[in-house]
Amino acid sequence: FFVQIKRATLRHAKIAAFGSTRRVGVRVEEDENVRTLLAAETPVAVIVGKSSPMHVTEVLGTTLAENLAMIRDTVGYLKAKGLEVLFDAEHFFDGYKLDPAYALETLRAAAEAGADRLVLCDTNGGTLPSEVSRIVAAAVAAFPGKSIGMHAHNDTGVAVANTLLAVEAGADHVQGTMNGYGERCGNADLTAVIPNLQLKMGYQVLANGDLTLLTATSRFVSEIANLRPDDYAPYVGYSAFAHKAGLHVNALMKNGHTYQHIDPSLVGNKTRVLVSELAGRSNILHKLTELALEVELSADEIRRLANRIKDLESRGFQFEGADGSFELLVRRAQPGYTPPFEVLDFLVLVEKRADKEILAEATVKARVNGTVMHTAAEGDGPVHALDKAMRKALLPFYPQLEAVQLTDYKVRILDPQSATAALTRVLIDASDGQRSWTTVGSSPNIIEASFQALIDSLELPLLRRASAG
Amino acid sequence: FFVQIKRATLRHAKIAAFGSTRRVGVRVEEDENVRTLLAAETPVAVIVGKSSPMHVTEVLGTTLAENLAMIRDTVGYLKAKGLEVLFDAEHFFDGYKLDPAYALETLRAAAEAGADRLVLCDTNGGTLPSEVSRIVAAAVAAFPGKSIGMHAHNDTGVAVANTLLAVEAGADHVQGTMNGYGERCGNADLTAVIPNLQLKMGYQVLANGDLTLLTATSRFVSEIANLRPDDYAPYVGYSAFAHKAGLHVNALMKNGHTYQHIDPSLVGNKTRVLVSELAGRSNILHKLTELALEVELSADEIRRLANRIKDLESRGFQFEGADGSFELLVRRAQPGYTPPFEVLDFLVLVEKRADKEILAEATVKARVNGTVMHTAAEGDGPVHALDKAMRKALLPFYPQLEAVQLTDYKVRILDPQSATAALTRVLIDASDGQRSWTTVGSSPNIIEASFQALIDSLELPLLRRASAG
Repeated sequence: FFVQIKRATLRHAKIAAFGSTRRVGVRVEEDENVRTLLAAETPVAVIVGKSSPMHVTEVLGTTLAENLAMIRDTVGYLKAKGLEVLFDAEHFFDGYKLDPAYALETLRAAAEAGADRLVLCDTNGGTLPSEVSRIVAAAVAAFPGKSIGMHAHNDTGVAVANTLLAVEAGADHVQGTMNGYGERCGNADLTAVIPNLQLKMGYQVLANGDLTLLTATSRFVSEIANLRPDDYAPYVGYSAFAHKAGLHVNALMKNGHTYQHIDPSLVGNKTRVLVSELAGRSNILHKLTELALEVELSADEIRRLANRIKDLESRGFQFEGADGSFELLVRRAQPGYTPPFEVLDFLVLVEKRADKEILAEATVKARVNGTVMHTAAEGDGPVHALDKAMRKALLPFYPQLEAVQLTDYKVRILDPQSATAALTRVLIDASDGQRSWTTVGSSPNIIEASFQALIDSLELPLLRRASAG
Repeated sequence: FFVQIKRATLRHAKIAAFGSTRRVGVRVEEDENVRTLLAAETPVAVIVGKSSPMHVTEVLGTTLAENLAMIRDTVGYLKAKGLEVLFDAEHFFDGYKLDPAYALETLRAAAEAGADRLVLCDTNGGTLPSEVSRIVAAAVAAFPGKSIGMHAHNDTGVAVANTLLAVEAGADHVQGTMNGYGERCGNADLTAVIPNLQLKMGYQVLANGDLTLLTATSRFVSEIANLRPDDYAPYVGYSAFAHKAGLHVNALMKNGHTYQHIDPSLVGNKTRVLVSELAGRSNILHKLTELALEVELSADEIRRLANRIKDLESRGFQFEGADGSFELLVRRAQPGYTPPFEVLDFLVLVEKRADKEILAEATVKARVNGTVMHTAAEGDGPVHALDKAMRKALLPFYPQLEAVQLTDYKVRILDPQSATAALTRVLIDASDGQRSWTTVGSSPNIIEASFQALIDSLELPLLRRASAG
């Protein structure tokens, strides 16, 4: 990694190597970890050292004086090598609560050895906001002119607040992670810390305009971390600016500030109106505007649509996260709707015999433009096989489906008590490279639920094309 | 609901009905909402009223004076009816920032009309911690002796901190929800607020001993809300006290306080050691102790086990959340292991023909105690059919499986880019009414992954019984 990243050109970032102070009783030049750290050839080194006397004696099993020497030697050695050095004071807050003088002493050892920043770590995440304010202020007062940092964990649910309060108490450096990913309950979540600092506290944290990339960046990081995005995350969550009750939606139409603490576009997010069983006429109308659907529906048709949504939701469908299937409902409700294809039958077979590879095969019979197509395909799994069989039936008529890819597949059990007999909701994300859409299916049979979502994901782009042409 | 709850005997709770002040220009006795509220016959009424001048003029479209009269009339009328009345001052913090005098005036109208508590609401969730400290202190100073409450939303990620700081500033009543469930980014999360108040700030919030029920209650609430529990939630999350790195686990064995901010048993949670691709010898040993598995494995067998785990994890299995499958790996690694059954073949068929109901059918061929059983069953879906066919094969030999129920079924796509062709991880929870266990399967074929987890969920109780007997 360090070899590769040296070749990269970074506009806003510096790469730091992370290590700890030399081991007990070892000369710093001979310490294996310190050597590895230097070998990374980064401009910055972050050195963690112990600030709590309990950890020094019980975990390291050494003396308080040797711990100070370990900090001094390591920081001094790396400074002499020309690096920018950050000292991460592990368990600083817990240590300060046990013995304020010794905790500050460890910072002093680092500062005197030349550390560029002293970072106060709440390693166990157990420190509350007013303690943070008090203790950071004490550290800031003890080291005038020195850069002080904050490293918070979320074990008491206050990592973001602790970070903001540290800044107010004089810290000028914060550590955190995108989406708060980290051990146990996570680190301070930068997707909340950054907009709080920039939009509410007046600090210019990101370069001009970059804050509008926050939501997309958050989702990108959750994608590469292979973790499902937190829909309820402040600022960047899918539901962060979602409104359901008709009253709120009405008020929002009058004034965007009435029920939103910021304009969501500042962080690249947007207001979302939930289509749900509570859906009134005004919610459906707002949703049509939001999706920019050029359709004309009479009051009667909207009432029928609301009833249809209500009925489907009672059977486990949900359109809050499936704008694609919602759009299809609208398009199918329009006078003159002609289905681009109709599925007549399907069959899925998954077979494992003795030593043979597992087999997944699907057959589909569909009427496409008046022709009955009967196709079969194998796949990596049953849904993949169905997708391939459907495409065999459709592609001769709709070559544009070549561009449509399924990009995600999500399964949710709605009634865990019934386990494998429970209602299953499947969401499929699809994209044609320019637009993307999400469709939904629901059934006690996971294959049927998947097939419903799959059919929708293929029909939508065909209807869009037809209405555009 | 109100009719039913009146019959219930509640030990710690009081039921409150929630409504708003009378409408503009309507006499309070004739207001439909106020009437409905009285009809609920609860001992407590919570009345929301506007505290922000912007909302009074722009959303309500009335005068500041009429708003004060609406608050006064409604609170006074309900007090005269003998109710305990809480006044929820909507948008209090935003209102205070616009016009402190008017915001306090709305509280005064409620207080003078006899409101028992004045609750300060951060309705849009946009207020930061130090603002909360300052504004709550101002309200507390303006109404000496009056009970002041805090109602926080999490739109800036600081709802828990804001609640704690309000208490420090003099609030003696807090509002929140279990797991923080609520609109947009949620409300103040009581599963963090309560232990912070009780364990760290010295308030007795719950009756003696009840705090140890917190984790179980949190999971119960997420179950009835049909939302997946947040594994990373402070205090109650599955991973809140999870440790992975060998270093931390070593230190924890020396002293539980070194890497945990509280003893997890105080909130009914527990330390968890993650078995993962990082698993060293000491992690596996700790895991064996944690699961109280009475097994004897040589150093060599443990090394083989670690390699086997590493291999399976590279193929999408994960044992961090699947203690049942981990236990099976251990039991299968023991000398003298005899499988209670072996699956030879299986076949799954899902079929939909014209107007017929969808069909899911499975056949299974398995060797059980030397006899080859070939069975078939229909189910609500393919996995349900497989479960039923397996039971037909096993029950004649192992009638104790009658007690084993599958209690949850979870599906996770590991590589969303490949969508339906991606690796699928399935987790199955099972229980015999006394113990429960989780098993895992992984395959690009969702049926195969489900079948692997299903087989494990049925084999584990048989091996446990055999080793106990």
